[in-house]
Amino acid sequence: MKLLHLPDFTNNIDNEKCAKFIMSKILTNRADDYAQWYNDIVLKSGLADYSAVRGCMVIKPHGYALWENMRDVLDKMFKDTGHQNAYFPLLIPKSFLSKEAAHVEGFAKECAVVTHYRLKNDPNGGGVIVDPEAKLEEELIIRPTSETIIWSTYKNWVQSYRDLPLLINQWANVMRWEMRTRLFLRTAEFLWQEGHTAHATKQEAVEETERMLEVYATFAEEYMAMPVIRGVKTANERFAGAEDTYCIEALMQDGKALQAGTSHFLGQNFAKAFDVKFSDKENKLDYVWATSWGVSTRLVGALVMAHSDDEGLVLPPRLAPLQVVIVPIYNKDEEARKRINDKLLALVKELKAKGIRVKLDDDDNNRPGWKFAEYELKGMPVRIALGARDLENNVAEVARRDTKEKVQLSLDGLAENIEKLLADIQSNMYQCALKYRDEHITKVDTWDEFVKVLEEKGGFISAHWDGTPETEEKIKQSTKATIRCIPLNNVQEEGKCILTGNPSKERVLFAIAY
Amino acid sequence: MKLLHLPDFTNNIDNEKCAKFIMSKILTNRADDYAQWYNDIVLKSGLADYSAVRGCMVIKPHGYALWENMRDVLDKMFKDTGHQNAYFPLLIPKSFLSKEAAHVEGFAKECAVVTHYRLKNDPNGGGVIVDPEAKLEEELIIRPTSETIIWSTYKNWVQSYRDLPLLINQWANVMRWEMRTRLFLRTAEFLWQEGHTAHATKQEAVEETERMLEVYATFAEEYMAMPVIRGVKTANERFAGAEDTYCIEALMQDGKALQAGTSHFLGQNFAKAFDVKFSDKENKLDYVWATSWGVSTRLVGALVMAHSDDEGLVLPPRLAPLQVVIVPIYNKDEEARKRINDKLLALVKELKAKGIRVKLDDDDNNRPGWKFAEYELKGMPVRIALGARDLENNVAEVARRDTKEKVQLSLDGLAENIEKLLADIQSNMYQCALKYRDEHITKVDTWDEFVKVLEEKGGFISAHWDGTPETEEKIKQSTKATIRCIPLNNVQEEGKCILTGNPSKERVLFAIAY
Repeated sequence: MKLLHLPDFTNNIDNEKCAKFIMSKILTNRADDYAQWYNDIVLKSGLADYSAVRGCMVIKPHGYALWENMRDVLDKMFKDTGHQNAYFPLLIPKSFLSKEAAHVEGFAKECAVVTHYRLKNDPNGGGVIVDPEAKLEEELIIRPTSETIIWSTYKNWVQSYRDLPLLINQWANVMRWEMRTRLFLRTAEFLWQEGHTAHATKQEAVEETERMLEVYATFAEEYMAMPVIRGVKTANERFAGAEDTYCIEALMQDGKALQAGTSHFLGQNFAKAFDVKFSDKENKLDYVWATSWGVSTRLVGALVMAHSDDEGLVLPPRLAPLQVVIVPIYNKDEEARKRINDKLLALVKELKAKGIRVKLDDDDNNRPGWKFAEYELKGMPVRIALGARDLENNVAEVARRDTKEKVQLSLDGLAENIEKLLADIQSNMYQCALKYRDEHITKVDTWDEFVKVLEEKGGFISAHWDGTPETEEKIKQSTKATIRCIPLNNVQEEGKCILTGNPSKERVLFAIAY
Repeated sequence: MKLLHLPDFTNNIDNEKCAKFIMSKILTNRADDYAQWYNDIVLKSGLADYSAVRGCMVIKPHGYALWENMRDVLDKMFKDTGHQNAYFPLLIPKSFLSKEAAHVEGFAKECAVVTHYRLKNDPNGGGVIVDPEAKLEEELIIRPTSETIIWSTYKNWVQSYRDLPLLINQWANVMRWEMRTRLFLRTAEFLWQEGHTAHATKQEAVEETERMLEVYATFAEEYMAMPVIRGVKTANERFAGAEDTYCIEALMQDGKALQAGTSHFLGQNFAKAFDVKFSDKENKLDYVWATSWGVSTRLVGALVMAHSDDEGLVLPPRLAPLQVVIVPIYNKDEEARKRINDKLLALVKELKAKGIRVKLDDDDNNRPGWKFAEYELKGMPVRIALGARDLENNVAEVARRDTKEKVQLSLDGLAENIEKLLADIQSNMYQCALKYRDEHITKVDTWDEFVKVLEEKGGFISAHWDGTPETEEKIKQSTKATIRCIPLNNVQEEGKCILTGNPSKERVLFAIAY
């Protein structure tokens, strides 16, 4: 993009034209090819890039800044609910994976395996080879999730009820050897957090599982501006080793669902697998109760797909790396330039004092039109432009990214109005996503309706199901739709399974999912 | 420790006795066995634990909180100097390591090697085995450092001088298969940051290398309260692939040196290895100039060894997870208990308003004496105790961890005085470490003196060296001492090499190092 030579636009209208001229060349339209639009936007807005390693991506500065903001907010929420961070090893002895039967069955197969610990110079010249003499006695697995290594450690940390609860979270990279990968949504390596807690009673562990689900739901709705449905997974979709998997499910703009976070009640399964017992107040020994819960860089993909448009990213102000960008529109008059700069520097100071993340882009190497396009592509919530004529009229042009509206606002009290505007954008993005989501929950009572809605409308389908894994599997095989969740506090009503006609006591939510 | 049953101490003097009683059982004395003291303190203060994976440790909550504080300060310093964070893949294709000749020669041998990507159920029963059909075509290495994978990516990001400089940092885990490991100081896996920058000119790259060394030195001195010597490595000790390695060197309490951070000027070596060229303003193609720089969780070990004592950790206030702990001393009088609590809650509020990290420990399950010992072990800079009699006298007992002094301070203006005390502790810790360090830089001019000082006193030895790698290697072989650095702005003076008697133009700093 930097190589494009554009005419020297010096007023806002022409800059707009210029921006559109550039944009039109950048992204595939969502309507034409949603998957391609997604890839385009991730690559071209600077969120991520492909890497030389199959299935692994590079998270570029703009994408990483977004993830950092997510991490910081979540981290504070975890600490406010009593959790501490720690760090456990990347590598897990192979034998650990077999210790919890359901876990190894459902999980542990597609893993990166470390077999050697040394390279040596190739005696035939040309680089290095694996030293056959440096073979590990037991292979090590790059963690796909850390229950096993963490519970092998908790065994040494827990003896008495006084050591409980253990409320620990880890920010880490994990690896699952996925065959088909997509930037952020499904990559071999990804970044995440995983909470692993240990409790003296079942009730405490269940409460923790539910508390952390609510933390995730609050984060998704209040920060990502992304409404979610809180629910419980069916046995088929449960985490391998869990007794219950709670989840939050979001809807993307193409009508597909996306699991945005999970919180697992693990019962005593891992405590039994790793022999973690505690003595209670009566000195009686029992196994510890466990939970685990996680969200990952997948949320960046969800954020993109929930809000963005054919012009580029649309980022919610509470997570956007920059909330306000200011573009001065200079003409040849050096005096005017100085007046514009003085005004804008004062504005930057006011905005920063309010805790607003703001950048004044006075770089002369790029024209205003190029900047407009760039910041639109990158999803900055608010753009302010100020030229000499604006200054004379005591106004600035303020453009909001979500609705693409532009207004002239008085320079008097501008910082306060920008602060309000950011709150309004955050709220509007949530309301728009909520409206779309609610319009895409469809009740159906027959198989024909189910198939028709799935094909023509997408979204969540609320339907009766007979409660058996076999029926669930048949529906998945014939339509690719899965049960996303049984919503919490679900209405109980008599009905008939859409596939088998067998009796059902509640509706569940189906969708095609990422 | 929680199982010890102690008499019910109800005044400060007895609590002190109690604390000493506990402490005496906890740590090996430094004078008796420094290495054992270090291991004891790391394990027992809750910084880290061993793991089930050879050479890898678990960073426990107290240790991780310390690392988080270090990370947050450094991260801000990096951003303030114009850097952005990004994230590159954990795994590196084996062939990449061979692309930069010096890099592979000096570096890449002791690595964890991924050869397979799937496990399968053992057909003979009992767990999982590596699936022989899932062998990678090219082995992947867990990053020991990321120059190669990053420069293979930069190739796609840099075309023109407009794309430069690239100022990128990464927070990540890395792995080097060390044969002898020590908690924090040398572990197979460790956490670190690695900056990787690309520049249009040699001068800019050298300036960046020096700028980041100064960032590290400032961090070590102003936050860790640990004086460092800024210098340049000799060719022997240079990073594999660098043209110059700058370093900061600190002195531990046992007289050994510790390399606390390095900043490398990489010349055009990696640009040439990965063919990263840019066109300058005159449209002429040239290779990009590079730097890389890093510090790691090793700094946690350095912090422990620079300041701590036989009673436990001594943490500098600017990095301590908690700066102030408050222990109420209750008696049987419920009324008095309430008055104490009201006073302390008000104090907590005042301290928090000043941005001080404070905890009121009113847990009735542990006695004051146990708490005193625990917080002393964990290195909390300031401890405040308040009992009924103190309250009547309008004073609190304030103990500072660094000097172990205890004073009665008036409750009037206590928050202000605590704030001043924290600043004083930070400054005092630096001054003490500086005094020790300066007393342990010894000028010697003969080989006998050199050996004698090394054996009897330790510390840095400032001596003449003839400038050859051979002499340096001989000295290392016979004494284990290495040249830690050639100090920046070193005095130029004529002299004779302590080993060969050959002429020398400046002194260099030798030491036995971690």
